[in-house]
Amino acid sequence: MGVVVPFEEARDPAESLKPLLEIVAEDMEAVNRIILDKAVSDVELIPKLAHHLIDSGGKRLRPMLTIAAAKLCGYRDEGHIRLAAAVEFMHTATLLHDDVVDESDYRRGKKSARLVWGNQASVLVGDFLLGQAFRMMVEVGSLSALKILSGAAAVIAEGEVMQLAAAKNTSTTEDEYLNIINAKTAALFSAAAEVGAAIAKRPMEEQAALKSYGRNLGIAFQLVDDALDYSGDSARLGKSVGDDFREGKITLPVILCFRRGSDDERAFWNRALGKGEIADGDLEHAIKLMKKHSAIEATLDRARHYGTIAQDALAIFRPDRYTRALTDVIGFCISRAN
Amino acid sequence: MGVVVPFEEARDPAESLKPLLEIVAEDMEAVNRIILDKAVSDVELIPKLAHHLIDSGGKRLRPMLTIAAAKLCGYRDEGHIRLAAAVEFMHTATLLHDDVVDESDYRRGKKSARLVWGNQASVLVGDFLLGQAFRMMVEVGSLSALKILSGAAAVIAEGEVMQLAAAKNTSTTEDEYLNIINAKTAALFSAAAEVGAAIAKRPMEEQAALKSYGRNLGIAFQLVDDALDYSGDSARLGKSVGDDFREGKITLPVILCFRRGSDDERAFWNRALGKGEIADGDLEHAIKLMKKHSAIEATLDRARHYGTIAQDALAIFRPDRYTRALTDVIGFCISRAN
Repeated sequence: MGVVVPFEEARDPAESLKPLLEIVAEDMEAVNRIILDKAVSDVELIPKLAHHLIDSGGKRLRPMLTIAAAKLCGYRDEGHIRLAAAVEFMHTATLLHDDVVDESDYRRGKKSARLVWGNQASVLVGDFLLGQAFRMMVEVGSLSALKILSGAAAVIAEGEVMQLAAAKNTSTTEDEYLNIINAKTAALFSAAAEVGAAIAKRPMEEQAALKSYGRNLGIAFQLVDDALDYSGDSARLGKSVGDDFREGKITLPVILCFRRGSDDERAFWNRALGKGEIADGDLEHAIKLMKKHSAIEATLDRARHYGTIAQDALAIFRPDRYTRALTDVIGFCISRAN
Repeated sequence: MGVVVPFEEARDPAESLKPLLEIVAEDMEAVNRIILDKAVSDVELIPKLAHHLIDSGGKRLRPMLTIAAAKLCGYRDEGHIRLAAAVEFMHTATLLHDDVVDESDYRRGKKSARLVWGNQASVLVGDFLLGQAFRMMVEVGSLSALKILSGAAAVIAEGEVMQLAAAKNTSTTEDEYLNIINAKTAALFSAAAEVGAAIAKRPMEEQAALKSYGRNLGIAFQLVDDALDYSGDSARLGKSVGDDFREGKITLPVILCFRRGSDDERAFWNRALGKGEIADGDLEHAIKLMKKHSAIEATLDRARHYGTIAQDALAIFRPDRYTRALTDVIGFCISRAN
């Protein structure tokens, strides 16, 4: 049906996010109002801790996908606002729990909530936000949206457990790793886009198209994130280069480097990530090995591959400003790495 | 409408649970099958950790309330089975997160999951079970049931945060404490009973009656639990007497003892629970003070008060084996303390 114009990797990633920002701007104001409204509780600690993350300038990419998908599918009612807010709360809850699991000290360039208020409060406020997310979904009253998002909630947690089980295991395969990020990251991107079509009650092929778009965009997004952790600009990332390395996380750049490397190099990865014995200069050595084996470039190539799939998924729609904005988002996700 | 026969505090608590066990037996077999089925995951760690708790012989009181309430309301379909399983999963998820928050080493007489598999896995498997709980609710497709249970999920987390914020605060009032247990314990009892009426599509007054029954039963249950922690039989409790004391938890027996005590005694509570400086013999001293001020007996009197409210809530129903079984459960909850 549509003509496929390849997504462009902009020199300035912010440029390729602009079309999306414009078409969702009004609805996102409503989403942000609901987010503030639903983070309220008489229990003082809850809004304090929740706002620490909510106000920390996340891009709100996932709820924007929900809004854009609903618009693309011609949805005219108000339900997408609450679903988008629910998606962002699910994401925020995941971040709170992730930081506890990863023992992270920083998030989006600020001290992590668990560092400020402790692991206990982070776990419980995450639970609260997840509960609020479900409340909002129920308010919308679409059982198909509820099915998609409740499924995602279970799968995300499954993905996190998979990642925990694979931690320090340098012989994780690329396939196994893809399963992990499919669950822990792509499931929410996918659900965020899919619910837009679901509440618009569009034919199943449009819902499936947006589901596939979100899934592949999510995989690309995560792979670029993995690459940035060994090559990015800390100030722009809001996290330090090397966080994954220090936490012993096995990501695709490591998997590729490990497989392409010599026995000596594998011994290095096993010591540093497998056993967690990290000495001064190890991160620099890791980055050197990644350059030697073009592991970052290969990871970004993989990301572009999934980006292309995401784009083709949209081809069943008649090209309009929504499909163009969603296509540009793919470019944004990938050009972050430039 | 009905004739109120006061609940009896049986000499053998197990006796007063029997009528309920009998009327729900067949349905609970189906609930248990679904619980096993939904704890399955390709991620090996998930069923292992989940089964640690699932197989540990909890009473499954909450799902039994859902079944009995649905039966009492004449419900004839299958939805109550999944809702009951969802209620138990919500409870299990809460236990997993609670043990992380309280740093508990034992649960139901076994090592806690967090001690065996770590805090990280306990947080994430809790999230998984919560996700599965929502999936099951969505499968049933009752928006009113979804509303009740998603509301409870947020409120439970709110209650846990309230308890965290009140920890070590010996000047917590009885009212504040009731707010906490209303949220962290009674909300799920209440929702468990209420959804039974909700899926049976009974008049709002019956739904409200079961909601009130569950809420007051839950408060009574928690108060008895608090009393048992200073007076119970460790082997039967599956937890050690003094757990709350060692964790610095402010429960009603402490609140009463603190208020009824002398300045010296208050200094003791402030040192032991406020500052967490516990020396040998302190637990024994605490128990002695509780006897001196009849704090355990007063706590149980309060529990009986809420038990009576729970019972009166049922009085709008025509007495039958369901109302009798639900009344006996009140007796069970309170006579556990004998």
